[in-house]
This record gives sequence, C-alpha cells and structure tokens, in this order.
Amino acid sequence: MTFLNLDHISANPLLPEVKDAMIDAIQNEYHNPSSQHQAGEYAAELLEDARQKTAQLLGAQDAKEIVFTSCGTESVNHAIKGVALANREKGQHIITSNIEHNAVHRSLKRLSSQGFKVTSLPVDEGGRVDPKDVRDAITDETILVSIMHSNNETGTIQPIEEIGKIVKDNHILFHTDAVDSVGIVPLNVQDLHADLLSFASNTMYGPHGVGGLYVRRGTRIFPLLDGGTQENSKRAGTENLIGIIGHGKAAELALNSMDSRQEHLSNLKELLLSELPNYIDEYIINTNLDHSLPYMVNISLKYIEGESVMLMLSEEDVMVSTKSACATGSLRASHVLLSLGLSHADAQGTLVISFGPENTEDDVYRFLRALKNIVDSLRAMSPLYKKTHQTTAQE
Amino acid sequence: MTFLNLDHISANPLLPEVKDAMIDAIQNEYHNPSSQHQAGEYAAELLEDARQKTAQLLGAQDAKEIVFTSCGTESVNHAIKGVALANREKGQHIITSNIEHNAVHRSLKRLSSQGFKVTSLPVDEGGRVDPKDVRDAITDETILVSIMHSNNETGTIQPIEEIGKIVKDNHILFHTDAVDSVGIVPLNVQDLHADLLSFASNTMYGPHGVGGLYVRRGTRIFPLLDGGTQENSKRAGTENLIGIIGHGKAAELALNSMDSRQEHLSNLKELLLSELPNYIDEYIINTNLDHSLPYMVNISLKYIEGESVMLMLSEEDVMVSTKSACATGSLRASHVLLSLGLSHADAQGTLVISFGPENTEDDVYRFLRALKNIVDSLRAMSPLYKKTHQTTAQE
Repeated sequence: MTFLNLDHISANPLLPEVKDAMIDAIQNEYHNPSSQHQAGEYAAELLEDARQKTAQLLGAQDAKEIVFTSCGTESVNHAIKGVALANREKGQHIITSNIEHNAVHRSLKRLSSQGFKVTSLPVDEGGRVDPKDVRDAITDETILVSIMHSNNETGTIQPIEEIGKIVKDNHILFHTDAVDSVGIVPLNVQDLHADLLSFASNTMYGPHGVGGLYVRRGTRIFPLLDGGTQENSKRAGTENLIGIIGHGKAAELALNSMDSRQEHLSNLKELLLSELPNYIDEYIINTNLDHSLPYMVNISLKYIEGESVMLMLSEEDVMVSTKSACATGSLRASHVLLSLGLSHADAQGTLVISFGPENTEDDVYRFLRALKNIVDSLRAMSPLYKKTHQTTAQE
Repeated sequence: MTFLNLDHISANPLLPEVKDAMIDAIQNEYHNPSSQHQAGEYAAELLEDARQKTAQLLGAQDAKEIVFTSCGTESVNHAIKGVALANREKGQHIITSNIEHNAVHRSLKRLSSQGFKVTSLPVDEGGRVDPKDVRDAITDETILVSIMHSNNETGTIQPIEEIGKIVKDNHILFHTDAVDSVGIVPLNVQDLHADLLSFASNTMYGPHGVGGLYVRRGTRIFPLLDGGTQENSKRAGTENLIGIIGHGKAAELALNSMDSRQEHLSNLKELLLSELPNYIDEYIINTNLDHSLPYMVNISLKYIEGESVMLMLSEEDVMVSTKSACATGSLRASHVLLSLGLSHADAQGTLVISFGPENTEDDVYRFLRALKNIVDSLRAMSPLYKKTHQTTAQE
C-alpha cells in the first residue's frame, strides 16, 4: 500500500519545482552571497530574488523588510527577544495568548526570568482571542503584543486585523506568528497591521531549515544572531543558499496558485467533515470551522487515545499527527486543547488531519475506512467506552 | 578560462558525495524527524547517524553532546550567550582575544550592554594568544573563556590545549570557535579541554546552513532558540534535514580522508610560499607558518589595495578574498591584522588565498602569473610605490 500523508503540518512534501530548483543549486555551486567576486555576486542575486518574491507574498513595501532565518522557531525567538531587549527602557510588559506555539510561549518564559511581565489572554470556546481583551490588557508598560495568525494544532484563525488595529492605535509593536498560514491563505502585513510576522518555508512546500521574519522598516529590534552583516545586519551567519533558492521557488508558486491551492484543500476538508458522521460517532471538532486554515482539521475521538489511533494508522501507512508537530516525546495534554475547555481525556483523544497538494478525494475515503476500523476495535477494548455505553443501555 | 577557486574560506564547493546525499534526500522525501509515524522515525535515524559521525570527528564521548545549528555564527552565539545567561549568578566576567570572529566579538558586545564584563587579550607578533595571559586574566567572577581554534583571516592556530588546560584547572567553562578547523585538521575536544566547540559544515565541504555546537555533558547552558524539544531540548526548531544529511556525509569523509586532505592542502600551500618570491617582492606573510591551517595563507602586498587585486583577479576568473569571508561592504581595516601590528596601509593590501580539494599545482602557477601582472600594473600606478622607490634610487 502506498503511503498516505495526511500530516502536512509536520511533513509537507517539497513541490517538484522546488526540488528541481534545489537540485539545480546543488549541482551549480552558487557559492557564498557574501563573497566579493563575480560568483558571489550571482549568489547574492539569487538570494535577493527569493527575498523579493517573499516580500510580494506578504505585501511588504520593501524586500529589505524580509529577514531569512533557519526556521519559524528562530523567527519567533528573534521577533520576541529582539524587540523585548531593544525596547526594554520603554517598558517590560508583553501581551500574548494561551494557545501560542511553544516557540512563543517559551521565548516569553525566558524573558519572564529576566524581569519581563507577560499577560496571557484566554480564548473563547471557538478558540479565538477576543480583541477587546487585548485592548483591556494594554498598559503604559506594554511594548509588544504577540498573537498567532493561525493555531498549529487546530488551524483556527485569529481576528488578527482587529487585534493589529488596536495594537497600532496604541503605538505598540505587534508580532504575529503566521508560520502555519503564509503561503496557504492570502494575507498582507499592511491589512494585519503587523510590525513583525514569522513564517516558515515548509508550510508552502519549501524546505525545512528556511524561515523568515518580516520586520517593518523602523522597528527597533536587536539581532538574535550577532556577527557578520548578512540580512541587512539583522541576522548574522552565512546563508543557507540552497534552501533559500528552494524557498524562493515555493514563494513564487504560492503567489501564483493561492486560489487553486485553497480551493483544492478546502474541498478535501469539507468532504472529510461531511463524510465523517457516516463512519464514526462521538467525536468533537476542535477546529473553528468559520475561521480556519483550509488544510487542517482537529478532532477528538471520545474514549480512546489519539496516540494509539495514530500508531495504528501508521501501520496502515496512513500518516496523521496527534498534536503539535514540532515535538515528540511529550505525552502531556495539549495546552491548546485544554484552553478550549476540553477535558484531559478528550484532549488525549485528538487527531490532527492536515491535507496537502497531492491528496485526493480517494485519500479521504481511504482514511475514513481505516479510521472506522481502528476506532471500532479500540472502543471495543476501552473499559471507559463499555462502562458508559452499558450504563446507557441499562437506563 | 575556467574559474579558479582560491577562496575556499568563503566558497567551499560541496564534495560530489555530499551533493549525491543531498539530492537523494531531496528526491526521497525524508519527512520531519519529529513526526510521530514511521516516515518520521526514518528521518530521525538519518539525523542521528549524522550526529554520530560528527561526534566521532570531534572525539565526543556521546553523540548527544552534538547540537546541530544553522551555521557557525549560531553555534558561537548559542555557546556564548547561552553560557553567560545560564551562569550569571556565578559571575559576569568573560575572557576572549582581540582576533576573534565577529560572531564572538559582537556576541560579547551584546552581553557587555547587559552588564557583563569582557577582558580581550592581545596576540603576539605571530598572531597567538599567550596562555599565561589567560591565566592572569582569570578572576573569581570569570565564568567563560572563549578563544578561537584558528583564525578566519590568517589561518593561525592558537595554543588551545594549553589554554584549555589552564581554564579547566580553574573550573571555568571553555569555548573554542573551531569553525575554520573542524574537518580539515584533526582535533579532539578531550585534548583541547573544550566544554563547548563551534563548527560549520561548509568548512569540511558540506552545505552552508548547517553548523553545530559541541556541548560537554553537564555544561550549564540556555538554548538560544526556545520552543520545541528538538536537539535534546538544546535547540528548538524543525531540523534542516537535507542539509544535515549532506553534513553527515561530509563528516564521514572528513574522518576517512583527514590525512590525505591535509597533505594535499599543505603541499599547495608550501608550493605557493616557495614560489611567491620568484613572482613578486615586498610582501608580508601574516600567517604564522609554524602554527596554521594547511589551506590558508594571508599576504599583505605593499603599496597597493587588496580590494583592487581581488577585483582584477576576479576579472581573470581567479577567486580570492581580501578579508573575512563573512561580511561584504566593510572596507575598514581588519581588526585581526591591526592586532598583529600591521599598519593600516599594509592591512589594506591583504589577500587571503585558501585552497580546496580540487586545486592543483597548476592552479598555484596560474594564480602566481596573474598576481604578478596585476601587482606590477597596480604598483606602476601607485604614487606611494613611485615615491618610495624614487627616494630609494636617489639615495
């Protein structure tokens, strides 16, 4: 049986054109963009071309506002720590939400240990921050607000335009972690009122190991990596040119195929959601279907463990994930799902299904058939399920 | 005329086997090592294989002591800032040298602005730190000593074993920036008494965009990138797997061909040095020939600008560099060369010639012939040269 990848949130394939661009870069030896001779100049042109395409994708006014990094996590660390330390004399208060990725969450924890104060806002049942809560949390000491564009476990999209407007009206810097959005849904840093926006190339079917940070001109920020003058002196270190060339191609393709990409992914998601009740019962949809990414659905299956379902699906060569894709080994209940009000038990029963460009409607049906068999057999062994349903039968 | 690369310090080619490994990784879609299913497990195995080979190359006791990063600059930033912030309660004094790479220099400058005190040691005429100076600089407040293994502009190798011994005898953490050494000259973290050692894959003909940090077990250090639990919780962010697979191959080849690699490079360097006086006169060798990397020579050509020589060589398709490869656009005299006691004028006349595996003896002669023509024509136009030599003739 062929592999069925429904775990694009952690394992996006490279697009064929991206592969070709990277293989071409490997074979042609483009040298170091910082070298001072002709071969270096050509490398620098390729680097700037990728930067230009990325700027277009984000609606940045100037390509110099794009800083390439090694991953979304570096972008987020750079944005948060770089702004906090550079603006410390103005204040030491930062506002965020309870459902951020660990890169945001732990960067802020690090700053807390250095004297910064962090206000973390709750989300409503739909998994969204209330913009009014942001307004209420702002103090004279607030220097930064960091709220994610879309959540990496549920795919729920936040009201970033409204939040950004409030933050800008208060003359505070605004960062949004848009790692799971950029390249899939159209967005524009002007509309979002973002001073800083983090993204990752692998979301748009570019390589792992390339991310980036939009930094609005005039934003006061320290580099995270000090050293040479690469990336307009915002990020030292010799560039991952092969990866960035691949990313440039991925950004170009994202720009040109945003509509068809969204339509394809949305269709698969809608098919999954409409067919799901025909295959299983007793589940909770944790994704806010009115405001969410087109490629992701988060489901809690009652009475069973998501981990077990994931492993049994893996044995049938179907790949899904159970929680955030960025960490293995942690079996703790997801802070995102608990923030939505889920019980620990329901949070443990969570599957994240994320579609990609190569998926088809047949894939949805293959997944549903496999899921039904696994859920049926796991529930047949579940004492909790038996107890609940025997009681119901006796009533 | 074919390109002649004598600028390996900034533009190392990928070895053919490294290219093949990376192309294979691109074509085979190895997925994310942190994914929780089978495809992720295979990716994790490839990652650990690269880690194991790197540990062998450095003489590390445990592969878990290797943390992969995105470049040498990140490794250095991580080592210095991570140790400083994690050990702040023990003291706030750090010792370094005047000839470090900007990654070290500017990381320490950043820490200085946060209250840390830095002692920067001079070098002797041979470009080396005196280990006694390290001993004398240690105070009760010293928490870290960071001295580079080899210099990125001159190739001069420091007495790291002696320095490391002194630092360890004083129970202080010791970091060495070995970015231009690892993979070319044999070294061992045990012999060097290093708690932390920075390296970069491109030095050993692996890809740009992959570096690493050796962190001795038990070393107290904060991550530079907070977030997920990748890299044994020492460096968050999804791994650049394609690059790391290429690096693993480069590390394996470095292990297996260290002797022949060194011999080949040393032979070219010796040929250059022995033939140089037959082509030009009035130059200064800035490399300590008793203690230096086998692939690099730094020469100051009197009365002329290194920048002009480099550009004229580039027109003849010969690539060299004039200073550190990590930054363009800066025409300031090199802090390394000034530390050696060179005048500003002589420092400006500097060429860095760095050999690689594909260079031949013919390449040395082609370079020397081109250099002679360029030096002759530039000196014929140099008012300083004319003045000096007319005066000499009149005497």
